[in-house]
Amino acid sequence: MKRILLILILFPVLAIAQQLQSPNGSFELQFQVENGVPTYQLDYNEETIVAKSSLGFELKDMESLLSGFTLKGEKTSSFDETWEPVWGEVGSIRNQYNELLVLLEQESTQRFLNIRFRLFDDGLGFRYEFPEQPNLSYFIISEEKTQFAMTGDHIAFWIPGDYDTQEYNYTTSKLSEVSSLMEQAITPNASQTPSSKTGVQTALMLKSNTGTYINLHEAALIEYAAMHLDVDASNFTLTSHLTPDAVGNKGYMQAPRNTPWRTIIASKNAGDILLSNITLNLNEPTTYEDTSWIKPVKYIGVWWEMITGKSSWAYTDIPSVKLGETDYSNTEPNGRHAANTEHVKSYIDFAAQHGFEQVLVEGWNQGWEDWFGKSKDYVFDFLTPYPDFDVIELREYAKSKNVKLMMHHETSGSVRNYERYMDKAYQFMVDNNYNSVKSGYVGDIIPRGEYHYGQWAVNHYLYAVKKAAAYKIMVNAHEAVRPTGLSRTYPNLIGNESARGTEYEAFGGNNPDHTTILPFTRLIGGPMDYTPGIFEPDVSKYNPQNNSWVNTTIARQLALYVTMYSPLQMAADLPETYNKHLDAFQFIKDVALDWEESLVLEAEPGDFITYARKEKGSNHWFVGRTNDEEPRTSKIAFDFLDKDKKYIATIYADAKDAHYKKNPKAYTIKKYRVSDSSKLSQYCAPGGGYAISIFEVTDNSQLKGVKRL
Amino acid sequence: MKRILLILILFPVLAIAQQLQSPNGSFELQFQVENGVPTYQLDYNEETIVAKSSLGFELKDMESLLSGFTLKGEKTSSFDETWEPVWGEVGSIRNQYNELLVLLEQESTQRFLNIRFRLFDDGLGFRYEFPEQPNLSYFIISEEKTQFAMTGDHIAFWIPGDYDTQEYNYTTSKLSEVSSLMEQAITPNASQTPSSKTGVQTALMLKSNTGTYINLHEAALIEYAAMHLDVDASNFTLTSHLTPDAVGNKGYMQAPRNTPWRTIIASKNAGDILLSNITLNLNEPTTYEDTSWIKPVKYIGVWWEMITGKSSWAYTDIPSVKLGETDYSNTEPNGRHAANTEHVKSYIDFAAQHGFEQVLVEGWNQGWEDWFGKSKDYVFDFLTPYPDFDVIELREYAKSKNVKLMMHHETSGSVRNYERYMDKAYQFMVDNNYNSVKSGYVGDIIPRGEYHYGQWAVNHYLYAVKKAAAYKIMVNAHEAVRPTGLSRTYPNLIGNESARGTEYEAFGGNNPDHTTILPFTRLIGGPMDYTPGIFEPDVSKYNPQNNSWVNTTIARQLALYVTMYSPLQMAADLPETYNKHLDAFQFIKDVALDWEESLVLEAEPGDFITYARKEKGSNHWFVGRTNDEEPRTSKIAFDFLDKDKKYIATIYADAKDAHYKKNPKAYTIKKYRVSDSSKLSQYCAPGGGYAISIFEVTDNSQLKGVKRL
Repeated sequence: MKRILLILILFPVLAIAQQLQSPNGSFELQFQVENGVPTYQLDYNEETIVAKSSLGFELKDMESLLSGFTLKGEKTSSFDETWEPVWGEVGSIRNQYNELLVLLEQESTQRFLNIRFRLFDDGLGFRYEFPEQPNLSYFIISEEKTQFAMTGDHIAFWIPGDYDTQEYNYTTSKLSEVSSLMEQAITPNASQTPSSKTGVQTALMLKSNTGTYINLHEAALIEYAAMHLDVDASNFTLTSHLTPDAVGNKGYMQAPRNTPWRTIIASKNAGDILLSNITLNLNEPTTYEDTSWIKPVKYIGVWWEMITGKSSWAYTDIPSVKLGETDYSNTEPNGRHAANTEHVKSYIDFAAQHGFEQVLVEGWNQGWEDWFGKSKDYVFDFLTPYPDFDVIELREYAKSKNVKLMMHHETSGSVRNYERYMDKAYQFMVDNNYNSVKSGYVGDIIPRGEYHYGQWAVNHYLYAVKKAAAYKIMVNAHEAVRPTGLSRTYPNLIGNESARGTEYEAFGGNNPDHTTILPFTRLIGGPMDYTPGIFEPDVSKYNPQNNSWVNTTIARQLALYVTMYSPLQMAADLPETYNKHLDAFQFIKDVALDWEESLVLEAEPGDFITYARKEKGSNHWFVGRTNDEEPRTSKIAFDFLDKDKKYIATIYADAKDAHYKKNPKAYTIKKYRVSDSSKLSQYCAPGGGYAISIFEVTDNSQLKGVKRL
Repeated sequence: MKRILLILILFPVLAIAQQLQSPNGSFELQFQVENGVPTYQLDYNEETIVAKSSLGFELKDMESLLSGFTLKGEKTSSFDETWEPVWGEVGSIRNQYNELLVLLEQESTQRFLNIRFRLFDDGLGFRYEFPEQPNLSYFIISEEKTQFAMTGDHIAFWIPGDYDTQEYNYTTSKLSEVSSLMEQAITPNASQTPSSKTGVQTALMLKSNTGTYINLHEAALIEYAAMHLDVDASNFTLTSHLTPDAVGNKGYMQAPRNTPWRTIIASKNAGDILLSNITLNLNEPTTYEDTSWIKPVKYIGVWWEMITGKSSWAYTDIPSVKLGETDYSNTEPNGRHAANTEHVKSYIDFAAQHGFEQVLVEGWNQGWEDWFGKSKDYVFDFLTPYPDFDVIELREYAKSKNVKLMMHHETSGSVRNYERYMDKAYQFMVDNNYNSVKSGYVGDIIPRGEYHYGQWAVNHYLYAVKKAAAYKIMVNAHEAVRPTGLSRTYPNLIGNESARGTEYEAFGGNNPDHTTILPFTRLIGGPMDYTPGIFEPDVSKYNPQNNSWVNTTIARQLALYVTMYSPLQMAADLPETYNKHLDAFQFIKDVALDWEESLVLEAEPGDFITYARKEKGSNHWFVGRTNDEEPRTSKIAFDFLDKDKKYIATIYADAKDAHYKKNPKAYTIKKYRVSDSSKLSQYCAPGGGYAISIFEVTDNSQLKGVKRL
């Protein structure tokens, strides 16, 4: 009798591990409260991916939520549903997981904390939940202390943790080398605040020496600060580090509520990381009743000529202006203002001629003379054009050509100002036939002291997207927080930049392997408006004062339309340059924006990625390969094609002597008959790649003169 | 020859004093650049009021604008114009001054700074002007360094400098005692940030030992941080100390622009300080074309019962709510919610019965359960009523009684949230027949780190007023920055609290001499919504848990309608209490809100003030006396009345044994015949006073039974 009693009494005190398996059993999660501390561990095919890691929070002026917990209860459940995204890399997405919800109580304070784990066949998502309770209502997070204990000195593809920018080149190094390489990794930016000497951003891509790929990110970042990770080189543990606000607090919370999900994707196959739908699946379904107004967009724009310095955003060279006071009709134009009526018309013509839906125009509105670096509050009104930009005339001209203009709302980080004008600005768009806006947040956030990735700004970005939906407007927010799958819930968020994009090619260049990493990092949470399509890598051809070089071959630029998934794709270069390479340009015209299927044929982060994608609603396939600075040979099979069908593949590839620096414009275009049994061995130049459009043969005459691959 | 040359060469180096006289010669200003430092001095009737004081700025990351100046030029001019305010203490205001504009250049940086001085017959105003110039465009102020060198250890009537509140009792002390008394002067507040150990707020009232009254304040505070003053007890010099932002900067500036005016009013007669129009005259005329919708308002309100704790703003006692998620129809009402339809109707009835135009209702809208102290962002939506407040029914009921409801927008300091809802909130008002709103900013400002009186919040308050004008809405902003005469330019700003008001009588009491100081300080810049009219000083009568005492006699409460000028006046107590004293209440019903003439019959800051005011558009006069904690006898003459006219004066006075604590409700009401030769000697109790309404006799039968005074 006594022995039984003994066991019963000890029962709640013993550490009991809760276990959860993924649907196919490949992943196993263990949860355990150990010495009062909540911990979890994740194994993948019996390899430990995340060693025992602790969970919890430091709170301001309150006892922390780090220890003193007991497990009060747990619930498990399963879920399996398939849903269709409004736009995406695939036509339908399966959301299948096993779930474990643990209910914890901190005895000394009688406070409750729940943690929900969802285990998918490709990884784990978990979040904290603060239920409604008497002893925890309003609280402030000083720091979230979620650990991800890596099991070795993995290779990491990282950018420095920063509260204001992600526009850094990636560094590839061991985790132990992060702190020694931090200083050189922090290159200048219009707005930057490094988070810590060992901080990195998410999505973080890792590769163990056992060949396991691991990816850490977050999903559903709503009303919360963005998470960075601090690297502890002594034990390879990564710990969450949230973005603070102006006074150093990291989260204002009111129970009941949840945190975002923390995600861990893992596979022996790098392509599985790219194809994972965990991030989207952890977001809520959309409640938009009508999504018919949300459509992918292919566009060109009055933009690259300003980025290179060939033209000017500003109408004049006055050193400073005051909206409503500066009389532009009385100022001297600088003669370099690109956003003028005639010039925009020429872009509309080009778009119409080549089937582009929209033309972005930057610099159309008053205020660009002193738009950044001045901490200027009332910097733009988003309504008043320069004297040489005729809103009505261009609206009608675009309409007549069945083209839309794309609006541009550069905010200069002056967020209160943008919100004051937002309704009027959106209505102005509707009144003038715009349905999509590229917004920007270049420069430090106003109110001063706030950061681009803090809770306050994160709240704002979503506010802008939700309000846009009321006007049936699609949003592409640059310099905003990197996405975390919110576009499932808010499908009018069709893009972000929020990483180092093509513009940096004109600001000194991106690493030639940059686009072989971005899909493993920045794109995990959502599409990127990378704005590829540069056919003239020598920037000095546009602006003799700018010696920057676009580190790419032309063939690789075409590939990016396939490898850098986005429902919003720009052909970024100037029409006059495209006119010199209309043969290569054809691929950009042909490539689809919305996909039924996506496959990763080859992938090694930092080295190369090859995607094959099938267009939604057709039998067309597109293949793209982006290649790093090494010359390589890509070997792919076309077994994704339908059996018993004939196709014509047009391969846009690097010439044998192509090189991103020495000979970027050397490309070949070859047509072949292909079928599901075809194979390709294709040379890829340093900083190169290839793009393939594959059309089903509908008429045998199309095959005439076309050789088999 | 040589001698002449010597003089010429030295000429620009010698300190040349620029002199300026006021129109009647009583004031003299001297301006001089001394050792490169701009200085000024102000004399009044040959007494130095402000000893030589320096001017300038510390700038962030830039050479300061403190020294190295030379005088490049100067211009003098005169101005004399009379204008009529939309509402005010007088029907017309003369704006007469002599002006000196000095043009300075800082040689080493080739930067220009102008200072404009306007000298009136009762004082000085001056401001800095940054002209458009090549070497100074955008700059950040670290600190303004304007000195006001007092000539002795004056008596000061002060409250602690604070970036977030003015709700302190006044301390009367010598300047040298300020720092030793600072700690006890800083009493608790929902939002407070003391500015410095020797800091005081403006308007600052001073009295020299030569019997000269001096008042320091600012006018036209627009797009700039509010100014406090730091006391240097070693030399009695006061130096400007601006309110910082979240990152410690004090002003974001873009040339060309001006600062607010710094004002110095002086007189041997305390009443002249009260009657000075310098602050209004330094503001710009209004550009509102139509001001017919702006009218003074006499109101009652569902308010004091919540302030005392008798009733609740909140509908329930749930500890925390989420707008849009909390289902109030499913919660248990606490039974103490005052803002319910039937109760508000009873107020509408009382207002209609007694001629009050409006009824303020606080607590009408969802969100009051956890409205402050939580740093809650989405705290109110300003649109959604509680289940027991029927917007439509009350709108129609009020209309039928020819009464309006007064809107209440408590923001809890969550400024971004208020701006997001502002248009909808103002439209809601228009749709429901409201034309005036009391707004509030209780609690720390969100965005966190900003202060109530920083440039950012100052910008917001004016934004709210300007936007309100577009909806023909009048604004009464509590907890906002104290006014600086802006209501000349924006006459729909009809009030602020922005000081320790009547509500503090229920939070522990105000000093009995509080209202003998406020007109010399808080009211210099504009009217105060002091909300007097308390007839039941024992707060425990309303709420047994609240032992607070309203430190006043009833007679003094009546006087405040005359001595505390405001176009917006509340009878703050409960109808059931007024019903017990309808005889005294008659004064409140009779007193005017808008004035043709105002005179100060007696005044000593901290001791007593007696005003006589003539109603605009009638021959009625009203007299009010507020008295400190000493028993005193007021002696006034009625020589302000028209000759050869007969009047009946009703005197509401303290009874002989009245006392603000021991016997506050003991008052007498006596009618007398008076004329311009009448005189009155009237006893005033401690914390007491008297009020007199004087009506012209239109029919001799009115004189029957009325004795001569």
